[in-house]
Amino acid sequence: MTLATLKTQIARDFGTPAVVIDLDVVDRNIARVQALCDAAKVANRPHIKTHKVPTLAHMQIAAGARGITCQKLGEAEVMAAAGISDILVSYNLISAARSGRLTALRKTIDLTVCADNPVTLSAYAEAAAQAEADIGVAIECDTGRMRAGVETPGEALALARLIKETPGLTFRGLLYYPTETSWPATQKFHDEVLAGLRALGLDAALVSTGGSPNLVNVGKLAGASEHRAGTYIFNDRMQMAAGVARLEDCALSVFTTVVSRAGPERGILDAGSKTLTADSGGLDGYGLILEHPEARIKGFAEEHGFLDLAKCNARPSVGDIVRVVPNHVCVVVNMVDQLIAVRGHTVVDVYPVAARGKLV
Amino acid sequence: MTLATLKTQIARDFGTPAVVIDLDVVDRNIARVQALCDAAKVANRPHIKTHKVPTLAHMQIAAGARGITCQKLGEAEVMAAAGISDILVSYNLISAARSGRLTALRKTIDLTVCADNPVTLSAYAEAAAQAEADIGVAIECDTGRMRAGVETPGEALALARLIKETPGLTFRGLLYYPTETSWPATQKFHDEVLAGLRALGLDAALVSTGGSPNLVNVGKLAGASEHRAGTYIFNDRMQMAAGVARLEDCALSVFTTVVSRAGPERGILDAGSKTLTADSGGLDGYGLILEHPEARIKGFAEEHGFLDLAKCNARPSVGDIVRVVPNHVCVVVNMVDQLIAVRGHTVVDVYPVAARGKLV
Repeated sequence: MTLATLKTQIARDFGTPAVVIDLDVVDRNIARVQALCDAAKVANRPHIKTHKVPTLAHMQIAAGARGITCQKLGEAEVMAAAGISDILVSYNLISAARSGRLTALRKTIDLTVCADNPVTLSAYAEAAAQAEADIGVAIECDTGRMRAGVETPGEALALARLIKETPGLTFRGLLYYPTETSWPATQKFHDEVLAGLRALGLDAALVSTGGSPNLVNVGKLAGASEHRAGTYIFNDRMQMAAGVARLEDCALSVFTTVVSRAGPERGILDAGSKTLTADSGGLDGYGLILEHPEARIKGFAEEHGFLDLAKCNARPSVGDIVRVVPNHVCVVVNMVDQLIAVRGHTVVDVYPVAARGKLV
Repeated sequence: MTLATLKTQIARDFGTPAVVIDLDVVDRNIARVQALCDAAKVANRPHIKTHKVPTLAHMQIAAGARGITCQKLGEAEVMAAAGISDILVSYNLISAARSGRLTALRKTIDLTVCADNPVTLSAYAEAAAQAEADIGVAIECDTGRMRAGVETPGEALALARLIKETPGLTFRGLLYYPTETSWPATQKFHDEVLAGLRALGLDAALVSTGGSPNLVNVGKLAGASEHRAGTYIFNDRMQMAAGVARLEDCALSVFTTVVSRAGPERGILDAGSKTLTADSGGLDGYGLILEHPEARIKGFAEEHGFLDLAKCNARPSVGDIVRVVPNHVCVVVNMVDQLIAVRGHTVVDVYPVAARGKLV
C-alpha cells in the first residue's frame, strides 16, 4: 500500500474528514513514556482524555502502566466496563456524586476521586453512604497553574483532616500539576504537607504529578509515586511547539478533502471547527498540512477550513486529500465517533471513541 | 416548579453540564422568523446545523417552512430517515459523492446539492449515474464572504452550462450568503447571472439567501425565492451582539456546576471547551452567566471553565448551578448527545442530537 492508495481507501470507505492514527507511532510513544517512568522509578498512570478508547488504554497497561487517569466519571464508567479497575479521576466530581453515578460506579470498582474543597467531600461522603463502601480521595493541590487545587499546604491539611474525620472517605494522597517553572515551589509545598500528614497519622500512598510537557520532569518531585500524562500517546503541534515531540512522533492526522479553490491564494478544506476545533493552543494557524507545510489554516466555519495559500508554491487542487496534524489532539478526538487505525499505509482497525462526549 | 427545583432536577436526573432548551422561546423564534419570511414573500428553509434534531426540524416545517438546509450529507441522511424529503445541502459534497453515500441517499429522496467547481460536478455526475437518477445542483456564489462560492457571474454561468451539458445533473438555481454590506453587489451579480441563464435556456427555480443576522434583509434581493437561517431557533451571545436577538430570545443555556473556588476572585465551572467550545465568536469572554452577568468566563481547559469573579459583588459558591448562554450556540449543540427540553421550569422532553458529529 502507498499513501495514495490509503487516501483513496479512506475516502471510499469512510469519507472525509476522517481521523486516522498510526499504531506504529502509538506503540513507540507508549513504549518511550513507559521507559521514561520506569527509569525515574515513578509509576505511569496515563490520562485517557486524549484517546478515550478502551483498546488504547489496555495497550498502555499492557506496556506497564499501573492504571489510568480520567477527567470525568463518564469516562471512568466506560473504562471500568471495559475491564480496567485501577482508575483515578482527577476532578471535583460534584455532579457525578449528586446524580448517583459515583455511587453506582463505586459498587463495581474501588476508584480514587479528587477534591479541593469541603463541598466536594460532602458529596463524596453521601455517595459512599449510598454505595455502602468507602471512597478513596486524593487532594488536588495548585502550585501555580491557577486552575483547581488548594493554594496552600494549610488548606490541603485541613481537607486531609476532614477526610480522616468523615465516615465513608479514605485519604489516598495528593495530586499536583506543576507548571514549567513551579517544580521547586511544588517540592516545598509537598514537603510541608507531608510533615503535616505525619502529624495527622496519615500516609500519602498516591503522590501524582501530571502533564505531557512535564514528562521531561518525571521523578523531579522527591516523593512522587506516579505521573499522569495524556497527549504523548498521539502528540500534536502544541507538543512540538513545547519541544517534547517531533513531527515523526505525531500519530494522529485528519484526512481532509480540498473542496473549493474559489481564489488563487485561498481554498477550503472539508474539516472545519466541527472537526479540528477552534482551540488554537496559542499557535499561529490551526494545524500543519503535511503535504503543504507552507499553507496556513487561518480560520474555520463549522464545516469549512479556510486555507491561505499565498506562501505555497505547489498549491492543492479541488479534490485533493491532505493530512492535517492538529494543534491540540485531545479536543479533536472528542469531536469524532471513531478513529481509523493504520500501520504504515494499511488500515488495520477502527476504534469507536467509546468515552467521547462524557460530560458528567 | 421554580428555577431552583429545575436545577435540582437536572442535576439529579442528568448531571451537569447539561444543555437545556426552552421550548416556549423556541416556539416564539420559529413563529417570528416564519412570519418574517411570509411577509417578505420568500420561502423559509431553516438550516438545521444549529439544532441537528429531527423533532425541531418538523416543528419548523409545521410552522410553514418549505423544507430544510443541511451542511453535510450525514445530516441529510438523518433528516431524510426522519421523514423530511425537501432538503438542500449547501456544500461541495465531494467526499460524500465519492464514498457512495450521495448515491444511496438519492435513491430515497430528490435532494438538491451544491457546487462551486467542476470537480464537485464530476463527482455528482458519477453519483447520479450510480443512482440511476438525476441529481439537482445549485451553484454557490460568493459576493464578499470569501468562503466557498464562485467569485464572478462568468464562472457561475460556466458551471451552469456544464451542469446543463452533463448527463445526470439538473440545474436547480443559485445560492448566496451575502455579508452585511454586500447586498447591492449581490443584486448586481444575480442580475448578470439571470441574464446569462436566460441565454442558456435555464431557469433558476431556487434563489437562496442565507444567515440569521441577514434575517433583517430577507426579501432584499429581488428574485430571491428562499432564505436559509439556522441560529435564530436558539440564538446566542453572537446574535445578541449582532443586534438581531435579545436575551429573552435565547432559548438554549448550559446548566453547569461551580466545582472549585480556590481563590477569592476565581472559580471553575464543570463546563469547559468540551461543552462550550473554544469558539469565542470574536466576543470578550466565553458565555454569559445569567446568575452572575458580571462574571467573566475567561478561558477553558477541556473540562474546566475559568471564572474571573473580580467584578462580581455576589460570587457563586462551590456547588452552585448556574446557566450559561453560549457565544455560539451551533457548536455547543454539536458537542452533546442530547438536549433537555423545558417549558418554563418544567422538563417536558429529551431530544437526541441525532445529526450530531456527522463529518461527511
